[in-house]
Amino acid sequence: MIEGRESEGVTRKLRMGMVGGGPGAFIGEVHRKAARMDGRVEVVAGAFSSDPAKSKITGKEQNLDPKRVYANYQDMAKAEQALPENERIDFVTIATPNLWHFDIAKTFLEAGFHVVCEKPMTMTLQQARDLKKIVEKSGQVFALFHNYSGYPLVKQARHMVKTGMLGEIRKIIAEYPQGWLIDKLEDTGQKQAAWRTDPKIAGGGGCLGDIATHAEHLARYISGLELVEVCADLTIFVKGRKLDDDVNVLLHYNNGAKGVLHSSQICTGRENDLNVRIFGTKGGLYWVQENPNELFYYPADGPTQIYTRANGYLCEAAQRGTRTPTGHPEAYIEGFANLYKNVTDTIIAKMEGRTPSELELDFPTVDDGIKGLSFIETVIESSKSAQKWVKMK
Amino acid sequence: MIEGRESEGVTRKLRMGMVGGGPGAFIGEVHRKAARMDGRVEVVAGAFSSDPAKSKITGKEQNLDPKRVYANYQDMAKAEQALPENERIDFVTIATPNLWHFDIAKTFLEAGFHVVCEKPMTMTLQQARDLKKIVEKSGQVFALFHNYSGYPLVKQARHMVKTGMLGEIRKIIAEYPQGWLIDKLEDTGQKQAAWRTDPKIAGGGGCLGDIATHAEHLARYISGLELVEVCADLTIFVKGRKLDDDVNVLLHYNNGAKGVLHSSQICTGRENDLNVRIFGTKGGLYWVQENPNELFYYPADGPTQIYTRANGYLCEAAQRGTRTPTGHPEAYIEGFANLYKNVTDTIIAKMEGRTPSELELDFPTVDDGIKGLSFIETVIESSKSAQKWVKMK
Amino acid sequence: MIEGRESEGVTRKLRMGMVGGGPGAFIGEVHRKAARMDGRVEVVAGAFSSDPAKSKITGKEQNLDPKRVYANYQDMAKAEQALPENERIDFVTIATPNLWHFDIAKTFLEAGFHVVCEKPMTMTLQQARDLKKIVEKSGQVFALFHNYSGYPLVKQARHMVKTGMLGEIRKIIAEYPQGWLIDKLEDTGQKQAAWRTDPKIAGGGGCLGDIATHAEHLARYISGLELVEVCADLTIFVKGRKLDDDVNVLLHYNNGAKGVLHSSQICTGRENDLNVRIFGTKGGLYWVQENPNELFYYPADGPTQIYTRANGYLCEAAQRGTRTPTGHPEAYIEGFANLYKNVTDTIIAKMEGRTPSELELDFPTVDDGIKGLSFIETVIESSKSAQKWVKMK
Amino acid sequence: MIEGRESEGVTRKLRMGMVGGGPGAFIGEVHRKAARMDGRVEVVAGAFSSDPAKSKITGKEQNLDPKRVYANYQDMAKAEQALPENERIDFVTIATPNLWHFDIAKTFLEAGFHVVCEKPMTMTLQQARDLKKIVEKSGQVFALFHNYSGYPLVKQARHMVKTGMLGEIRKIIAEYPQGWLIDKLEDTGQKQAAWRTDPKIAGGGGCLGDIATHAEHLARYISGLELVEVCADLTIFVKGRKLDDDVNVLLHYNNGAKGVLHSSQICTGRENDLNVRIFGTKGGLYWVQENPNELFYYPADGPTQIYTRANGYLCEAAQRGTRTPTGHPEAYIEGFANLYKNVTDTIIAKMEGRTPSELELDFPTVDDGIKGLSFIETVIESSKSAQKWVKMK
Repeated sequence: MIEGRESEGVTRKLRMGMVGGGPGAFIGEVHRKAARMDGRVEVVAGAFSSDPAKSKITGKEQNLDPKRVYANYQDMAKAEQALPENERIDFVTIATPNLWHFDIAKTFLEAGFHVVCEKPMTMTLQQARDLKKIVEKSGQVFALFHNYSGYPLVKQARHMVKTGMLGEIRKIIAEYPQGWLIDKLEDTGQKQAAWRTDPKIAGGGGCLGDIATHAEHLARYISGLELVEVCADLTIFVKGRKLDDDVNVLLHYNNGAKGVLHSSQICTGRENDLNVRIFGTKGGLYWVQENPNELFYYPADGPTQIYTRANGYLCEAAQRGTRTPTGHPEAYIEGFANLYKNVTDTIIAKMEGRTPSELELDFPTVDDGIKGLSFIETVIESSKSAQKWVKMK
Repeated sequence: MIEGRESEGVTRKLRMGMVGGGPGAFIGEVHRKAARMDGRVEVVAGAFSSDPAKSKITGKEQNLDPKRVYANYQDMAKAEQALPENERIDFVTIATPNLWHFDIAKTFLEAGFHVVCEKPMTMTLQQARDLKKIVEKSGQVFALFHNYSGYPLVKQARHMVKTGMLGEIRKIIAEYPQGWLIDKLEDTGQKQAAWRTDPKIAGGGGCLGDIATHAEHLARYISGLELVEVCADLTIFVKGRKLDDDVNVLLHYNNGAKGVLHSSQICTGRENDLNVRIFGTKGGLYWVQENPNELFYYPADGPTQIYTRANGYLCEAAQRGTRTPTGHPEAYIEGFANLYKNVTDTIIAKMEGRTPSELELDFPTVDDGIKGLSFIETVIESSKSAQKWVKMK
Repeated sequence: MIEGRESEGVTRKLRMGMVGGGPGAFIGEVHRKAARMDGRVEVVAGAFSSDPAKSKITGKEQNLDPKRVYANYQDMAKAEQALPENERIDFVTIATPNLWHFDIAKTFLEAGFHVVCEKPMTMTLQQARDLKKIVEKSGQVFALFHNYSGYPLVKQARHMVKTGMLGEIRKIIAEYPQGWLIDKLEDTGQKQAAWRTDPKIAGGGGCLGDIATHAEHLARYISGLELVEVCADLTIFVKGRKLDDDVNVLLHYNNGAKGVLHSSQICTGRENDLNVRIFGTKGGLYWVQENPNELFYYPADGPTQIYTRANGYLCEAAQRGTRTPTGHPEAYIEGFANLYKNVTDTIIAKMEGRTPSELELDFPTVDDGIKGLSFIETVIESSKSAQKWVKMK
Repeated sequence: MIEGRESEGVTRKLRMGMVGGGPGAFIGEVHRKAARMDGRVEVVAGAFSSDPAKSKITGKEQNLDPKRVYANYQDMAKAEQALPENERIDFVTIATPNLWHFDIAKTFLEAGFHVVCEKPMTMTLQQARDLKKIVEKSGQVFALFHNYSGYPLVKQARHMVKTGMLGEIRKIIAEYPQGWLIDKLEDTGQKQAAWRTDPKIAGGGGCLGDIATHAEHLARYISGLELVEVCADLTIFVKGRKLDDDVNVLLHYNNGAKGVLHSSQICTGRENDLNVRIFGTKGGLYWVQENPNELFYYPADGPTQIYTRANGYLCEAAQRGTRTPTGHPEAYIEGFANLYKNVTDTIIAKMEGRTPSELELDFPTVDDGIKGLSFIETVIESSKSAQKWVKMK
């Protein structure tokens, strides 16, 4: 029995493996912290780097059994598959740069493991569609980490849209400005900057694939709407950079709503200013990632309201994804942990032959990955086009 | 001698006339309050409404000599011109709906009066260009009331751009969302809504002409940049409305900077949320009209700074446009009053045969009006076009 | 008829005289701007300085008839009294340093004029009590300018207390920190600092009389509660200064509520940070002067609400004291103007033999002045006392 | 080797035991999440409740070896002491209500274990002083969890004071208002409310011991100043409650600085609004726990600055206590984790015979516990006293 679990059939921690997340990485350790946080998961194996020596360093730091620190993900998948069922990993988390996502996911899915994968899901939309088939064939759980959807007040926002508190949605403004790439940081050896600006590793989108997709997903997750066409303006501001560092897009949604999405890595002084505003016929809402414990609701008649985390008036999904009382703030890592909670509950439901509940299934999937790659490829096409609107692929 | 005046040649209050601003109007009384505030101007004449009876009501409320409350602006121009020089108005403020701006401005300019005019300046770009010729021929002062440029911290923002604190500008985000027209308010008899949504009176732009132009001007005023092309998406969300109530535009500036401008009257719960963000190679800035006494500066290296009104570290233009010590907030009407200060100082300079200083000349002119109409007409054309980018007219 | 007036019996602007407010003054010109703003008042006479030459300078700046610019207030009272009723001032505004308030008020009241007076009302509590008798005997209107009670959302706050939205009040926190006197500014010739730190001119309180009294009044105005005893800690931080520059007080209110009031002029970097929080059994509220267009309401059950100016859901007093639509901010000078509106309406009601309405009578009076002086003298006594609680005088 | 450890001598996770933190507890699980977060600690043993059955439930949830889930802390200390050195716990975390802190700490210290203890440290000042002797005699590490000192920007604030950016400190305002006890929640069976309002379990202070001590510690930690005397006003607002639910205190510090501390559990609508303002001759600062990733610095000359987490301009202690890049917020649990990082590094240094660095030793100790109890007892005495100032015990 693990604290907070809905089911009691599986009474042990899930065993997690990781590909990526070696020395100098950022997001891999966030995954490990988040997975560890609630005591439901233990990291037991990994291929942390394409350099086996570096993989070993991280394995040692993680206190892993050296036999389960692998030189590459292929070896890892094989070796783990060969372990007895009560030893081998239950799922793998893919925290490498984008280039390897598809192959690693395919390898582990086909080896019979559930997969947690960083975004963007693949390098191309075609890969994304292929991956969907592989996921379906495998019968495994596949979770895509659009982590910002893990915040409790994002779930509350979505609930408010669903229950009609906004009426019919008319306008969406999604922003994700950062400023860390105002200079050519990729030339300084900074690893995070280097791969994110390299089309061979990051894919066709720079800022677009790295963060604009988060904004697109967040707007979609909360609003429940789908894009039908976009009109995009991608720019490379820093000389010699190979991928876009600035993204401006006009949006048309399937219900007739209009929108604006802009994202940047050259907005000097902005740190990680993801935010979304949604306006409907009956109300509006506003959420900002840097201050995630508040959600602003604008009813058409009456004062603005500030919803705050952990209050009894919040929806079940928002209540479920919280650990501390009101006013004791939770933040980025806890948002990841909320996704891990849902993903692991879903994995356990599968283990137990149970249908996961809607709350447990509340995490992004391979379909979100396809929509994300569709967004990336359509925006790139639109940006090159002289025509105003380009239909979503 | 009037308090705060730079020159002492003219020792009396200026005499102001007004066209528009009758019962039920909003902006006319704001002009009067602002003009009165600093004791430099007195309202002495007016044609406050196209309905002579209503004009009389306002004249009485304003305590005017009934002889100088006119049935229409034509009579007013003639009668005032016929008065002795030491009695007649020094300038007229035009606060009518857009339809009449051109004719009134032309009439008073040709009658030898200085003119203060609400925006948008005219119904069409052609009228705007014609008006420029009339202004030039007349030799009179013509001021266009993009009032938000009167705020002291807007002047500080402009100063920071000018002095290089932002470096080369790369990105501009200008917003002006409101929510007051989420329903068909124009059908209820609400006068402000009625004329603003009537193309015969407001011109080709609804939200576009009413408020998006303020955002465009603000961005231009602070950045010093000019638009070269736009890609626009105008929408009428409220059924049966005749003019746009939502505006989304991608922007290309003459230095290569990119931008996004969005404005709306259907953003439920937003009141008057004009704001602008500008990002350059060395710093960024952010100003919000609803909290006008603060200006956020983001230097590339170092903590965000909050500039506040009335401090010694501000530029001269920002210091000049303020009346109260730090922390004693100033707001909307004071912003108008700052424009009146500069306009009346310029008028007085003319009276005295003096060249106005750069500080005195700091108010929008007929050229800003032309650029505003160019923006309106280009955005409308772009919105109808299947082509992505449309060059500014 | 004057715009916005409830009564139409008196159809002219009121004539205002001023004592104080000469060159270098701060608050006098604020009074003039505020009085002028709504077009209901004109300044026609003044004794602006104890130096007749300086008085003349201001008179000229104000465009006054030189005959009505007086060398001192005694002459002014006499001369104005001698003018025909339809010429002489209707009321006088006293904007001098504290030392002269009592004598000037007495002089004008006894000469038959209504009086508007800056705070603190007098130098001593005894003077304050004496003045009350004079006011009562005179039958004139006497208004004390605790200007912060003029803000519309302060009126809304008071309304919410009155109508039970907070339940029984338990706790009040009133703050007024400033930082402008962290150094010995009074030695530099800065006039505002000089008199405020001089006990002969300012009275027994420094920071206490200058600003802490505003915080005390604001808390009392909104809560409707009266102090019964205080426990105070006054400090002079800047060496050589003669009056307190820091004030900390524990408060006991007449319903059992507890409170804390602190105020300072040595809180480095704070500008004019007057604010008040009030908590009751059913709700709480929070208002900050530097952001006066928002009022935070904390219901016991449910999200925090942000009330904003000019909305239809506000109480009548809050709606009455506003000039511009939602989101077009109003501020400090407009707050003064709101008090002038109520005071002048009350004066006019008297002229017309009408009983002023509750809304018109909504301004601080001589009784507030007595309570203010009682607060000042009790705090000073408490600060010197080794005993914890000192009853209000 | 463990990630982020300075030393490599000890290459394993530390083994943690816990007393308290059973079903229905709040803070115990926060300790576990925080300890787990960085992968440096594993929970291996516990006596989670005074009810052995409940202890077992939590042990099972934590996936512990049932043999190491104890019926009480005495058994636990004995049994763990009897285990081989490479199995037994390295330290114990005490997360019980206050009543048991002293006995448990004494037991484990005397059994040779390091101790992490919740605050307030003991029931009485006498116990606190006794505990200090026990700690000293034991030679073990003793950490007191004033967790708010773990936030990186609190460390930055302290650094700014230390390096003179505030000059000489003059004024401190420390606040900790909450609203969760506006009604008699303790009568409803709510466990957190029940023990906190029971003097037999919580000690002499209600709100005082529970949260006001955090505010006192935070002000002391940042300012480096010590209290010399206080003047306090404790109140029980909710009828029938046995301990204070509201605390107002005037403060005198050892350098002549003055202060105000107020804290409450009846401030309706406030969640966990701990905050502190400190003003010196050269600058001021402001930090709010509910928005912990920002620190406001007010230089005497120049704009307010907002320091944000994870930037290169922060001090080493602030940089050390952070896990994610700028703009990816960290919060409450991460603050706890920062204390665990320092405490465990110090324990390891001891294991390795190394002197811990100043950065590693940056956590509250038994001396902070004594000062906390001194604050509690002096405030209680002062509140009962008719005399204004009571010296710190």
